[in-house]
Parts: sequence; structure tokens; C-alpha cells
Amino acid sequence: MNLTAILPVLDYGSVLIFALTGALVASRAQLDPVGFIFMAALTAVGGGTLRDLLLGREFVFWVARPSYVLMAAAAALLVFWTAHLFESRYKWLVWLDSVALSVAVAAGAGVAMDGGFGPVIIIIMGVVTGTFGGLMRDVVGNEVPLVLKQGELYLTAAFGGATAAVLLDICGFERVVALICGGIVVWTLRAGSL
Amino acid sequence: MNLTAILPVLDYGSVLIFALTGALVASRAQLDPVGFIFMAALTAVGGGTLRDLLLGREFVFWVARPSYVLMAAAAALLVFWTAHLFESRYKWLVWLDSVALSVAVAAGAGVAMDGGFGPVIIIIMGVVTGTFGGLMRDVVGNEVPLVLKQGELYLTAAFGGATAAVLLDICGFERVVALICGGIVVWTLRAGSL
Amino acid sequence: MNLTAILPVLDYGSVLIFALTGALVASRAQLDPVGFIFMAALTAVGGGTLRDLLLGREFVFWVARPSYVLMAAAAALLVFWTAHLFESRYKWLVWLDSVALSVAVAAGAGVAMDGGFGPVIIIIMGVVTGTFGGLMRDVVGNEVPLVLKQGELYLTAAFGGATAAVLLDICGFERVVALICGGIVVWTLRAGSL
Repeated sequence: MNLTAILPVLDYGSVLIFALTGALVASRAQLDPVGFIFMAALTAVGGGTLRDLLLGREFVFWVARPSYVLMAAAAALLVFWTAHLFESRYKWLVWLDSVALSVAVAAGAGVAMDGGFGPVIIIIMGVVTGTFGGLMRDVVGNEVPLVLKQGELYLTAAFGGATAAVLLDICGFERVVALICGGIVVWTLRAGSL
Repeated sequence: MNLTAILPVLDYGSVLIFALTGALVASRAQLDPVGFIFMAALTAVGGGTLRDLLLGREFVFWVARPSYVLMAAAAALLVFWTAHLFESRYKWLVWLDSVALSVAVAAGAGVAMDGGFGPVIIIIMGVVTGTFGGLMRDVVGNEVPLVLKQGELYLTAAFGGATAAVLLDICGFERVVALICGGIVVWTLRAGSL
Repeated sequence: MNLTAILPVLDYGSVLIFALTGALVASRAQLDPVGFIFMAALTAVGGGTLRDLLLGREFVFWVARPSYVLMAAAAALLVFWTAHLFESRYKWLVWLDSVALSVAVAAGAGVAMDGGFGPVIIIIMGVVTGTFGGLMRDVVGNEVPLVLKQGELYLTAAFGGATAAVLLDICGFERVVALICGGIVVWTLRAGSL
């Protein structure tokens, strides 16, 4: 499998799932539909946007392909019409966030690998892409940032998974395999701490 | 009228009015004159700065023309010396913010139109330019973000106006006319909800 | 002394000291070691990152030289293992922050001078580089932003020092001398207000 080909798949995946978590925060804050779209889009593309600006990529990923934002908007409206059916929105939020974190760490590390950056920058971009969308969601939506919750391996999970991906890459594994394993490490650590 | 020629006018307008709102938040937080300038400048150029970074413009607008920031500083000092004369600073804040929002949405959408971007990006840049300066002001100044107030059409107004501008542009209206109408739609929706 | 040669020294200095303050906030929030590293790195490189993005530099300083981030991480772990020895972490935080502010204002103004920007942009970059790392630390770490504390010359100190550096530069002093004097002005004003 080709690394460059799989990167948009990872970005679409993390955008979709983070969008759902952003919409759940909008639901807890009782916003209107446009508020759902705003929080979903902010959460969905926040981390990847920061990654692209920091790496000096020619275009921010969703400016080049606006379909990312349209997907986030669709996810927001889906949650808007169904959120009242959920029993515990916060539980859904935390679990979906753990999946989004895993995919986004892989997406961030993958873009940095593909750009030819060294191990330190690859790890940082994994952590930044994974955590900043959720951090913006929590700061704007006035929730206690998940990053800062004590006793939960949030940053540690992101850091551990990104490091695992780098190590597997250095050991000669295919990059796509290294990223997938990295994502699994993130999720195992994060879910195990919940 | 020429679109490229009118864009700085819109940017100057939104910078001036947003600066006044930032200074009013500084007044409510009882800051010193430099604090007024900081809050005014942050609010005034925050949204347009994010727009320029996201679109990958060669220079952020106020780095290319520092007079924008000087104007924001002048507005801050004006408010510093007169704020005690106002009876209700919060009311002034909200109403001035509604005007600034309208002008900034037009400014953001206009820059994206001028850069040759498609409808989705034009709408997003209108919303981002209109809302992020005020959002940074509220997060840093510890006010409840206007974006998140329930029952007030803040994001909806920005979104509706930007969409109107795009539709009028597609229907063949002159871009300057489309932007002005878009701004009027923003203000009508926002003021009507107050 | 050569300006271009001294700029990395100033960046390293401010990164190291700001990292210590970020780790102290992590300690007050009782985070785990990775949380210490996250807060230290965010504080250490936040202001300089924003400066580099705003000035459109080809690479953000720590993306070009990841050793900045490694140093911040080392400082974070040092604080993690020793923080329990300090009697008043908040006092250390405020005093270290005053030194970091002084060095970072000089670093920010120096980069803008070196890039050939005018006086207004030099002053703004001094203030932005000096204050935004600490601002992000306080917003994310849920502390009252030092920038906004009443009766403390925080922004005024940054602004005064950056202005002093610009004036000395205009008067024909060597740029390295102007920056060092500017940093001393920042620290004198800030420390004098504590």
C-alpha cells in the first residue's frame, strides 16, 4: 500500500469522527444547527490545520479539498437530529474522541513522514494533529479539556502511538503498517485508561 | 466598482469597529492603556489574520500595511479616555460587534472571491473572518463567547450573509454588490435577534 | 556581534525559561510527565511559532531545529522530578516568567529587525513573541492570564522594552545592544511591578 494514497483516508476518517464529537459538545451547549456545524468543523479540522500551517504545506488540507468541511457539516446535522436519542452524550463523546484521536495521530505522523521530516517532528505532528482539534473544541465549548484530565492517558496515548509508528518505521516496516500499528497503540492506551 | 479596490476599505472598516469592541472588553476587565491596545488589536485583526494564514496569502494583511494596527491602537485609546461616559458598555459592545461582524463577513468572503476560491471556501472565510476576532476577544477577556450565546443568531447571521453573497455572485451580480448585500443580510439577521 | 548569530541564542534562552514556567503550571494542575512536556513545549514555542507564521518565514524555528523542543521536554522532566522541592511554585512561575518575557521580547523584535520589517511590526513581534506562549499556557492550563492581571505591568513592560529596542536601533546603536537594552527594560518594568 502506498503512503501518499492512504493519507487522505486517514484525514477523512479523523475529520468525520472528530466532527461527531464536536457536534456532541454543541448539543451539550444547546446550540442551534449552525452552531453544531461550527463546533463540528472546528474540532474536525483544527488539528490538521495547525499541522499544515506548522509544516508550511502549500495548502491547508481542507482548503485544497473543501469536501472535508462538507462532511463535517453533514455529520453535525446528523447529530443535531438524533442527539436526543442518546442516553449519555458525554460517554459517546469520550469514546468517539478516543477513536478520532487514534486516527488523527496516524494522519499527522503520516503527513510528516511523507514530507521527509525527522522523528521528533513526526512525533510532534502526530500529537498536534491528534489533540488540538479536541482542545479547541473544549476551550471554545467551555468543557474541561480532555487533554488535562488527571488519571487519563490522553497525551500519553497520543505520544506513545506516534513514537511506536516512528520506531516501526525506523525498524524497516512499511510506513502504512507502522501508522496503523501506531493508531492501535493510541487507542489501546487511551481506551484502557477509561 | 472594482473588487480588489474595495477589499482594503472593508478590512479597514471591520478593523476599526472590532477594535472598539475589544477596547470595551478591556474596559470591562479594567485593564491599563496597553491592555486596551492589546485587546483592541487582537479583536480587530484576529479573524483576518486567520483567513490570510488559511488561504496561504503571501502576507498577512496588517503585516503588509501596519496602519491597520495603528488605527486599532488609536481606537483603543479613544475608548480608554471616553469609556466612563457610556452608560451601558455591554450594550455598545454587542451593537458595535453586530456591525463589525457584518463588515468582516463581507471582507472575508471578498478576499476568498478575489483569490479565485470556490463557494464553500468563500462562505467559510466569510464566517471565519467575521467570528474569530470576537471569539479570541471573548476567550482571552473571559467573557461568554457571543458565538455560543443561545437564542442569538450569531453564527447563523454570518453564515446566511456569506451564503447570500455567494448566491448573488453566482447569479451574475457584480461582486461588490453581492458583498454589500451579504453584509446587510448579516446585520439584519443579527440585529433582529437582539 | 552579529544579529543573525545571536537570534538562536535568544530563542534558546526564552524556550528554556518558558518551558520551566509551563512545567510549573502542569505541576499546579497535577498532570503526568507527558502533560508536563506538553505544557512546557506549548509555552516555550507558542509565541515564536505565531511570530514565524505571521512573518511568513520559510520554516517555523523549531520545525527547522527540533532541538528546541527536545530542550523544552528536558526542562519539563527536570521540573517533574523536582517540583515537590519548591516551597512556592506560583512565585517561581511568576519570576521565571518575567525573565522569559524579557528574553522573548528581544528574540521577537530581533527576528523582525533581521527580516527587514518596519518599527511597528518589530514592536508587535516583540510583544507577540513575549506574551502569546504564556497566554496559551494560562488559557489551556486554566490559570488567570498574567497578561490580564490588573496592576501588573505585563503588556506595558513588553511594549516598553520592544519600543526601547526600536528607538535605540533608530538612534544608530548596534542591533544586538539595542535588543539587550530592550530586554533589560522589559525585565525592570515587569519585576518592578511585582
